[in-house]
Amino acid sequence: MTLTAGAVTPVLEAAGGAGGHSIAGFLLTLAAILVAAKLFGEVAERIGQPAVLGELLAGVVLGASALGVIPAAGPTAEIITILAELGVLVLLFEIGLETDLREMRKVGGSAISVAAVGVLLPFLAGYLFWSNVPHGMGDPDTLSTAAVFIGAALTATSVGITARVLSDLSNLGSIEGRIIIGAAVIDDVLGLVILTVVSGIAAGGSVSPYSVARILGVAVGFLVIAVAIGGWVAPRLFRSIANMKVSYAVPTIALAIAFALAAVADLAGSAMIMGAFAAGIILARTEQYNAIEDRVKPVGALLTPIFFVSVGSSLDINLLNPTRPGGGFLLLVALGLTVLAVVTKVAAGYASPWKKFRRLAVGVGMVPRGEVGLIFADVGRRSGLLTDDVFSVVLLMVMGTTFVAPPLLKLLFRGQSTDVGAEHLL
Amino acid sequence: MTLTAGAVTPVLEAAGGAGGHSIAGFLLTLAAILVAAKLFGEVAERIGQPAVLGELLAGVVLGASALGVIPAAGPTAEIITILAELGVLVLLFEIGLETDLREMRKVGGSAISVAAVGVLLPFLAGYLFWSNVPHGMGDPDTLSTAAVFIGAALTATSVGITARVLSDLSNLGSIEGRIIIGAAVIDDVLGLVILTVVSGIAAGGSVSPYSVARILGVAVGFLVIAVAIGGWVAPRLFRSIANMKVSYAVPTIALAIAFALAAVADLAGSAMIMGAFAAGIILARTEQYNAIEDRVKPVGALLTPIFFVSVGSSLDINLLNPTRPGGGFLLLVALGLTVLAVVTKVAAGYASPWKKFRRLAVGVGMVPRGEVGLIFADVGRRSGLLTDDVFSVVLLMVMGTTFVAPPLLKLLFRGQSTDVGAEHLL
Repeated sequence: MTLTAGAVTPVLEAAGGAGGHSIAGFLLTLAAILVAAKLFGEVAERIGQPAVLGELLAGVVLGASALGVIPAAGPTAEIITILAELGVLVLLFEIGLETDLREMRKVGGSAISVAAVGVLLPFLAGYLFWSNVPHGMGDPDTLSTAAVFIGAALTATSVGITARVLSDLSNLGSIEGRIIIGAAVIDDVLGLVILTVVSGIAAGGSVSPYSVARILGVAVGFLVIAVAIGGWVAPRLFRSIANMKVSYAVPTIALAIAFALAAVADLAGSAMIMGAFAAGIILARTEQYNAIEDRVKPVGALLTPIFFVSVGSSLDINLLNPTRPGGGFLLLVALGLTVLAVVTKVAAGYASPWKKFRRLAVGVGMVPRGEVGLIFADVGRRSGLLTDDVFSVVLLMVMGTTFVAPPLLKLLFRGQSTDVGAEHLL
Repeated sequence: MTLTAGAVTPVLEAAGGAGGHSIAGFLLTLAAILVAAKLFGEVAERIGQPAVLGELLAGVVLGASALGVIPAAGPTAEIITILAELGVLVLLFEIGLETDLREMRKVGGSAISVAAVGVLLPFLAGYLFWSNVPHGMGDPDTLSTAAVFIGAALTATSVGITARVLSDLSNLGSIEGRIIIGAAVIDDVLGLVILTVVSGIAAGGSVSPYSVARILGVAVGFLVIAVAIGGWVAPRLFRSIANMKVSYAVPTIALAIAFALAAVADLAGSAMIMGAFAAGIILARTEQYNAIEDRVKPVGALLTPIFFVSVGSSLDINLLNPTRPGGGFLLLVALGLTVLAVVTKVAAGYASPWKKFRRLAVGVGMVPRGEVGLIFADVGRRSGLLTDDVFSVVLLMVMGTTFVAPPLLKLLFRGQSTDVGAEHLL
C-alpha cells in the first residue's frame, strides 16, 4: 500500500501545485490551525477573556518552537502567511465597514483628543524606555530605529478586541463606548501613518522632515481621496451590482475592492491594511452595507484566526524560559513595557477637556493593543530591525494588555448596560 | 513620490511574506479574478447559461495567452493555484453536504445503472476515439495512457452544474431530478476511483490487475470507512461543538475536517476531493447541517470561482486559431469528442430497466461535465501526459457539454415544476 500511495502522490501533488511539496501537509497544518484556534478561543472565552487571546496562544503552542505543527519556513509557512495576510485585510475591511463616520462626528472632539494623547504618550514612553533603559537587546547601531518601532507598537488600540468586549457588555452605544471606538479607529489611522513613516526609516531612506511630511501626506491623502471618491462612486456602483442575477456578486466585488485598494495603498507608499480599512469605510455608505457584512463575516471568521495564530506562532517559547541566561530579564523588560502600555493609555482617557464621561472607563477601554500592534511587531521582525528577543517582548506586551483590559472593563461597566437589548423588553 | 514608495515597499512586502515578490501584484490579480468571474458569470446567466461557463471564459480572457492578468508561473500563479485548490475542496464538501444518502437509496437502482452505463460508455468511446482516430496529437509512446485520461475525463457528470440547473427549473425533487443527482454523485465517485487508478498509471507504477484492484479497494474503502466511522462520530462531536461559546466554531471545525480528510485521502492514495466529499456526506447527518451549509456557502462562493477561472486561464487561445497549421483540425477533434460526450451520456439515460421515468430528460441531465472532468484534464496536464493541445481539446469538450445541456433541459422540463414552491401557495 505504501508503494502504491508513493506512486500516486506525485501526480496528485502536481494537481495541487505546491511546487512539488506536499499539499497534504499544508492541508493538515491548516486544519490544525483552525481547530486549535477554536479550542483555545473557547477556553479563553470560558475564563472571561476574548477569543483572540486564545488564538494567539494556539499559535504559540502550534509554533516551530513548541509542537512544530506550523513550520518556520518553507512553502507551507509561506501559504499560511498569505492566508493570514488575507485574514487581516478582511478584518480591517470589516472594521471599516462598522465605522459610521456620522456617528463618530458627534463624539469627534473627545475621541480625537483621547486618540492623539493616546498615541503620543505611549509612543514617547516606549521610545524613551527602549533607548534609555539598559536592556541589552538588539544591535546598538539600530537601537534608536528599534526604539521608534517599539514606541509605534504601543500606539494603536485594537478596535476589534475593544468593540467585541463593549458589545459583550452591551455598552457599545454608551458615550464612553462611542468615544472608545472613535478614538480606537483614529489611533489606528495615526498608528498606520506612523507605521508608514517608520517603515520608510527602516528601509534606510533619507529621513528628512520633508520626506516624513511627504509620507504622512501620502498616507492621509490616500485615505481622504479614496473615501471622497469612493463615497460618491460606491453607492451608485453597488446599486447596479445589487441588480445582478449572478449569486454573491455584492460581497465578492466588495472584497475585490478591498483587496484592490490594499494593493493601491501599498503601491502609493501607504500600508495595505489602510487600503482595506478605507474600502470598508467607503462601502459602509452603500445601501448594500448589510448584505456585504452578512456575507463577508463568514469569510473573515475563517481567515482572521489564521492571522492571530500565525502571529502567535512567531513567538519563540525558549526565549521565555526564565532559567536560561537573560531569560528572567527579558520577562522583566516585557513586564515593564506592558505597565507603560497600560498606564499611558489610561492617562489618555483623561485627555478631553469637553463633555462629561467616565474618564477611567475610557482609558481602560483603550488599553488592549491588538492587530495593529502585532502588525508593527511583524513588520519590524521581517525587516530584520527587531531581533527575535525584541519581537517576543512586543508580543508579550500585546498579549499582556489584551489580558488585562477585558476583566477591568467588565468591572467598570458592571450593571450599566445602555444598549437596548432583549432584557429591557421583558 | 516614486522614491519614497520605493523605499517603503520592501518592508511592507516583507510583511506580506510573498518571498520578496510583490504582494500588491497578487492582490490585484485576485481582485481581477473575482470581478471578472462575476461579470462573465452575469453575462452567462443573462443568456440562459450557468454562471460557471462565464467563469471559465473569464479565466480564458485573463489567462497568460490573452490579457496576461493571471501569470502562467511564479509566486502569484502558485498562490492562485492553492486558493483554487481550496475552492474545489470547499465545492466538493458542499456537494457532499447536499447529498442525502437515504433519499438516494429510493432511486438507487436506477441511479446506479444510469451512472454505471454513463461511466462505461463515455470511457470506452473516449478511449477508442483517442487511440484509433488519427489526430496526431501527443507523444505516440504514451498515446494509450493519454487515451485512458481522455476516456476518464468523459465519465463524470458535474453535480454542481446539474443541481443548479434543476433547482432553477424547480425540478430537483422530480423522479428524473433525483435520478440525475444520484447518478451524478455515483459517477463522481466512480470517476474519482478511475482518477486514482489513472494517476497510478500516469506515475508509471507497475499496473498489474492486482494493483488496480488495490487502488480501487483503497479508494472505495476510504469512502466507506470514513462515512461509517464519521457517520457515528460526527453527530456526537458536533452536538458538543454546537455548545461552544466561541463564534463560528461549527463551520470552522467542519471545514477543518474537510481539509483534514482531503489530506488523509491523498496520503491513503486516493484523490483529495474524495476526502472533502466524504466529509460533506458525513456532516450532512449532523443536526448542525443547516448552520454548516449557511456559513460555508459564502466561503465557497468566494473560493470556488477562483478554481473555474484558474482552469479557464490554462487554455492557450492561440491553439484555437483555425488559421494556424492544424488549428482547424484541433477544433474538429474537440467537436468530435464533444459529440461523443453528449451521445454516450444521453444513451446512458436509457439504462435502467426499472421504474418509469423520462429517459431522455435523465440522459440530457447527465451531459454537463464540469469540475471532475476539469480536474482530470488538470492532473493530466500537470503530470505532463496531456500536451497543451490535448488539454485544450478536453477543456473545449467540458465547455461544450456545459453549453449544450442547460437550454435543452429547460426545454424538456418546461412547465413541469414538481417542487413545492411559493407559487403553489398563491
